[in-house]
Amino acid sequence: MIKVGIIGAAGYTGSELIRLLMTHPDVKITALVGNSNAGQNILAINPYLQGFVDLMVDKLDIEDFAGKVDVAFLALPHSHALNIAGELLERNVKVIDLGADFRFHDTQIYEQWYHLEHNQTELAKEAVYAIPEIWRDEIKGARLIANPGCYPTSVQIAMYPLLKAGLADLSRPVVVDSKSGITGAGRNAAKNYLYCETAESINPYGIAEHRHTPEIEQGLSRMSSENANVIFTPHLTPMSRGILSTIYVSLKEEISTEDLWDMYQEAFAGEYFVRLLPLGIYPHTKWVSGSNFCDVNVKVDPRTNMVVLTSAIDNIVKGAAGQAIQNMNIIFGLAENKGLEICPVFP
Amino acid sequence: MIKVGIIGAAGYTGSELIRLLMTHPDVKITALVGNSNAGQNILAINPYLQGFVDLMVDKLDIEDFAGKVDVAFLALPHSHALNIAGELLERNVKVIDLGADFRFHDTQIYEQWYHLEHNQTELAKEAVYAIPEIWRDEIKGARLIANPGCYPTSVQIAMYPLLKAGLADLSRPVVVDSKSGITGAGRNAAKNYLYCETAESINPYGIAEHRHTPEIEQGLSRMSSENANVIFTPHLTPMSRGILSTIYVSLKEEISTEDLWDMYQEAFAGEYFVRLLPLGIYPHTKWVSGSNFCDVNVKVDPRTNMVVLTSAIDNIVKGAAGQAIQNMNIIFGLAENKGLEICPVFP
Amino acid sequence: MIKVGIIGAAGYTGSELIRLLMTHPDVKITALVGNSNAGQNILAINPYLQGFVDLMVDKLDIEDFAGKVDVAFLALPHSHALNIAGELLERNVKVIDLGADFRFHDTQIYEQWYHLEHNQTELAKEAVYAIPEIWRDEIKGARLIANPGCYPTSVQIAMYPLLKAGLADLSRPVVVDSKSGITGAGRNAAKNYLYCETAESINPYGIAEHRHTPEIEQGLSRMSSENANVIFTPHLTPMSRGILSTIYVSLKEEISTEDLWDMYQEAFAGEYFVRLLPLGIYPHTKWVSGSNFCDVNVKVDPRTNMVVLTSAIDNIVKGAAGQAIQNMNIIFGLAENKGLEICPVFP
Amino acid sequence: MIKVGIIGAAGYTGSELIRLLMTHPDVKITALVGNSNAGQNILAINPYLQGFVDLMVDKLDIEDFAGKVDVAFLALPHSHALNIAGELLERNVKVIDLGADFRFHDTQIYEQWYHLEHNQTELAKEAVYAIPEIWRDEIKGARLIANPGCYPTSVQIAMYPLLKAGLADLSRPVVVDSKSGITGAGRNAAKNYLYCETAESINPYGIAEHRHTPEIEQGLSRMSSENANVIFTPHLTPMSRGILSTIYVSLKEEISTEDLWDMYQEAFAGEYFVRLLPLGIYPHTKWVSGSNFCDVNVKVDPRTNMVVLTSAIDNIVKGAAGQAIQNMNIIFGLAENKGLEICPVFP
Repeated sequence: MIKVGIIGAAGYTGSELIRLLMTHPDVKITALVGNSNAGQNILAINPYLQGFVDLMVDKLDIEDFAGKVDVAFLALPHSHALNIAGELLERNVKVIDLGADFRFHDTQIYEQWYHLEHNQTELAKEAVYAIPEIWRDEIKGARLIANPGCYPTSVQIAMYPLLKAGLADLSRPVVVDSKSGITGAGRNAAKNYLYCETAESINPYGIAEHRHTPEIEQGLSRMSSENANVIFTPHLTPMSRGILSTIYVSLKEEISTEDLWDMYQEAFAGEYFVRLLPLGIYPHTKWVSGSNFCDVNVKVDPRTNMVVLTSAIDNIVKGAAGQAIQNMNIIFGLAENKGLEICPVFP
Repeated sequence: MIKVGIIGAAGYTGSELIRLLMTHPDVKITALVGNSNAGQNILAINPYLQGFVDLMVDKLDIEDFAGKVDVAFLALPHSHALNIAGELLERNVKVIDLGADFRFHDTQIYEQWYHLEHNQTELAKEAVYAIPEIWRDEIKGARLIANPGCYPTSVQIAMYPLLKAGLADLSRPVVVDSKSGITGAGRNAAKNYLYCETAESINPYGIAEHRHTPEIEQGLSRMSSENANVIFTPHLTPMSRGILSTIYVSLKEEISTEDLWDMYQEAFAGEYFVRLLPLGIYPHTKWVSGSNFCDVNVKVDPRTNMVVLTSAIDNIVKGAAGQAIQNMNIIFGLAENKGLEICPVFP
Repeated sequence: MIKVGIIGAAGYTGSELIRLLMTHPDVKITALVGNSNAGQNILAINPYLQGFVDLMVDKLDIEDFAGKVDVAFLALPHSHALNIAGELLERNVKVIDLGADFRFHDTQIYEQWYHLEHNQTELAKEAVYAIPEIWRDEIKGARLIANPGCYPTSVQIAMYPLLKAGLADLSRPVVVDSKSGITGAGRNAAKNYLYCETAESINPYGIAEHRHTPEIEQGLSRMSSENANVIFTPHLTPMSRGILSTIYVSLKEEISTEDLWDMYQEAFAGEYFVRLLPLGIYPHTKWVSGSNFCDVNVKVDPRTNMVVLTSAIDNIVKGAAGQAIQNMNIIFGLAENKGLEICPVFP
Repeated sequence: MIKVGIIGAAGYTGSELIRLLMTHPDVKITALVGNSNAGQNILAINPYLQGFVDLMVDKLDIEDFAGKVDVAFLALPHSHALNIAGELLERNVKVIDLGADFRFHDTQIYEQWYHLEHNQTELAKEAVYAIPEIWRDEIKGARLIANPGCYPTSVQIAMYPLLKAGLADLSRPVVVDSKSGITGAGRNAAKNYLYCETAESINPYGIAEHRHTPEIEQGLSRMSSENANVIFTPHLTPMSRGILSTIYVSLKEEISTEDLWDMYQEAFAGEYFVRLLPLGIYPHTKWVSGSNFCDVNVKVDPRTNMVVLTSAIDNIVKGAAGQAIQNMNIIFGLAENKGLEICPVFP
């Protein structure tokens, strides 16, 4: 049994890690940490977990925590993992960081977009940015996983076959228009995310300024070995879970939707968690809800010689907790979908 | 492996049976039937199932169907199971009927409330009305299960310890006020259940006339060996899944909330699927969403000498598909929670 | 023009007062007060009001405020109006208090349920508890209006004809099961009312302990000249606006639904804001959304000799801001529906 | 008083016309037509209108209808207005068509995208495509108004100042990503628009094939006197009302967000129904809900030299019924905002 600890257990991502790990056959949750909820049983925070878990949430004590776990999931606001990660690695605890602190090999980009100093440049170089469907081989031996952002996961998976085939004209900006459920805003008391402020309404935010922009660009550039430019608009959508990304890419040459779809089918053959939908059936976020799937489809517009890629994930599963467990499975040599063979819950 | 067939596979209940049965370790789905969708792959109806199932929906051919399955789940409008059940039983197929056709031992009550003739009086007598937490012993040897209605399940479980203890004053009507998600209205095209007609709105319907009234009364009367009278109001609530029942019962004698809560804890000890919430924490339907749990709590009002019982279930799991599988497990001698150890999905 | 000030302008009720008063032909809003938002333009808080209002929110300065207004609407947490009301009355400002501070003639009941000392017993006696459809005559000359609670408004209007006719058997408790939209919880940052905590879920709260219980009892007792006992359960419902109350009352004698409906029609004839729906059509909260209507219907259950009364209001209009303006109209001798002839917005 | 008739009165757009026209001081609704609901009182279809209207819905009889009205609003599926419009014009009834039949001066485009023959080429030439904020002068003398589509309204208003200033590089496709509430799908019984199929989910549809594409292109081309190319993706969003359009346009030259914002402010000065939000505050659909406003903002991305325009409307008000009434006001020489000075309803 792999002994697992979660730091930041009371938020939506931390709680989802608990839900998914509790039923993972090779895992035992041995420690929960969450500073603002320390001293409470996790059931007082999440009554829906009754019957599955019965653990106190502790304040972080690195020594004690490291003694209890083989691997730590860090579900923390950015900057909070910078020091914790190193301290855990020193104590031979593997680290899967679900935040942004180790996602950039070039920490200057982090500093520029997050307006923070990055004091762990070496660790940032060591960290493996881990979307298994794209960089599986790099993940296997990793000690420190930089679990990708929710939006970037949805975008990079959808772009991967197109870039691998060299079909994208990256001299023109890639337009990424994403729609996220409200769990993406976190679980802290905040007027802006009250039911009455968000229900029955959609709005863009952080236009051309969102921190996932350079993360997407880094990924697209690595995949294509070209310099990718992205203009990215996230939207807050009246639903709890889910991200839908609609991606507009200029094509280098003409290709039919059918041929591109065939190419995608081939590229994703064997990928358990990527589901290319039938031609003409576009992703619905509810169709992946509660699961680790990324549903994808493609549509070429010959009038503009652009392709519209669409992808849907559950932002707190494939966009966070689920992908983190997928990465844990790889690190520990388990089947990649172990504990994650979960059917979406519809409706 | 138990070979399972579903008749009425394309509705919400049928589709939920597929979701739950696909991951049941001792089950193989071998036949799907659904007349209005016959000839389609179930994936064309439910794209969210991609990767889990790949079966055609057939027209019903009893002979062929009976040859393929050990047990049949019938998820049909009422009256449709009346003849099918017998034909399957004759062919040694066990039948779990999720409709109302075999829920009444006294078929005259059925005829009166459903405005139909009941032509299977003998089968109605044989059928076992099956809430395992209340009538577990009767279920074991059954060939024909009458799976209870969604509202009646939520009400009878909540009432069981109170009635067993003889605390309810049944000379006064039991007031049952239930709130259901919109899956309860089924999956047929109907203007009244469009998003725009139901979102952001709650309304009562069928006041004092709903067909679950006599089903609840039958259950309460059996549990108490008294004649129970129920006044029942269901409400359509803007959510997909869930039933919350708020039940007002006159007490025979004074009892404190704390003592009643202790009694409930004892009564439900050992019941995997019933979760008595901590004192003062009342059920939220979302806390059971996607799972087979029934969350319960109690509150005594000394000012009126009444008790308010509250219970929440997922109407298409514990209120339909999940309880049906729980009953299947009992019939086939499996652990009652096999394939149903599913954590609620929140949020 | 009546000069109007709002104290507590930034909450949902205060903001709704602004929406409704801005288009009232005889009113000019001359002062907005809201301590935690003082110094901001109301448009920074409510961008949706752009084009209608352009006023700063000030800290409360009684002298200054009283000099600017003829009437003050107080939309404050309970206890906050206790002193402010008197200070405004002394300065000849009429006061319409939308909170609970002056709703009880017997301030001991207030003290018992609100766990606060009431230091304005004289004002509490003077205050007029104001549902115009029931106590219109008392409102006309009032200086201090106690605007009723949202739940009590929906219950008392629905009960009025029944009690006036002496048909209710008040020796038995009246069961009130109410469902409220989430604006009822206010506009403060609070984890429990985040979208993700409340969407797709319904839950009861404050069972048999809610402070609107004695307010309802006071009203029913006054209407009936009997001692009414109420058991009241409010529920948080996944919608922004609306209250639906389902009320179960024992009948003294048999009466048909049709005869009772006729009696209701007569009782409410001439009431602009009460709409008795056709027989068998029950209220939907969305059908009154944004308007000052109270939709009502009745259904007798001969099996239990009880009647089920149902009523729907928009909790922040007829349950708060709208009724307050209706009362203002009466005080100032205007047509009662002036500025309130607003059609519900559906869907 | 202008005598008004509505053909297609029972759908969401027709019902919204009733809501808005009922309180218009210069209008009297004198005829309602709706074939599938003929013979019913409009109150049986829309109980929320009780107290405001009490009219039968009739089958269409041109002669009778034309005798009763000065102006007809046609809220019909496309192709249905082709013949009706001419017959009404012959009888001196002004026609405001809310469908697509007269939106294209070049009827070949209509035929190509709608897969129908257009048999009224002369009327199509006469018809005035009417967004008052852009083509106000053409509307004044019109007999036949082609009321614009919902998506095209949101896009063209947002693009107008940019195109007028010649800042857009139209050699590159304009990317339009729009999100619509579910009223956009109409009020007919359809499984795909049930609450349970659409709640908590967002999905794209009709990618690069939606019929509003050529309508947007026609408008942008007219405004710019260039040939505009549009790639358009609509999305079904879990809310009843509202359209948010996010529009990505390549810039000819560098400009700051601030300068562009100033230019927009100037361009829309005096437009009652267009609200440029403060810098950095982006539109929320709920902030225009129930009103005829179009909220707009702009954001330049210097990294890609593109501008992101965002606009929000209520799809059945400014996107349909409200703009139609605005056009009626112009035709009849009334103040353009008469009857439409409606504050958005939030939350």
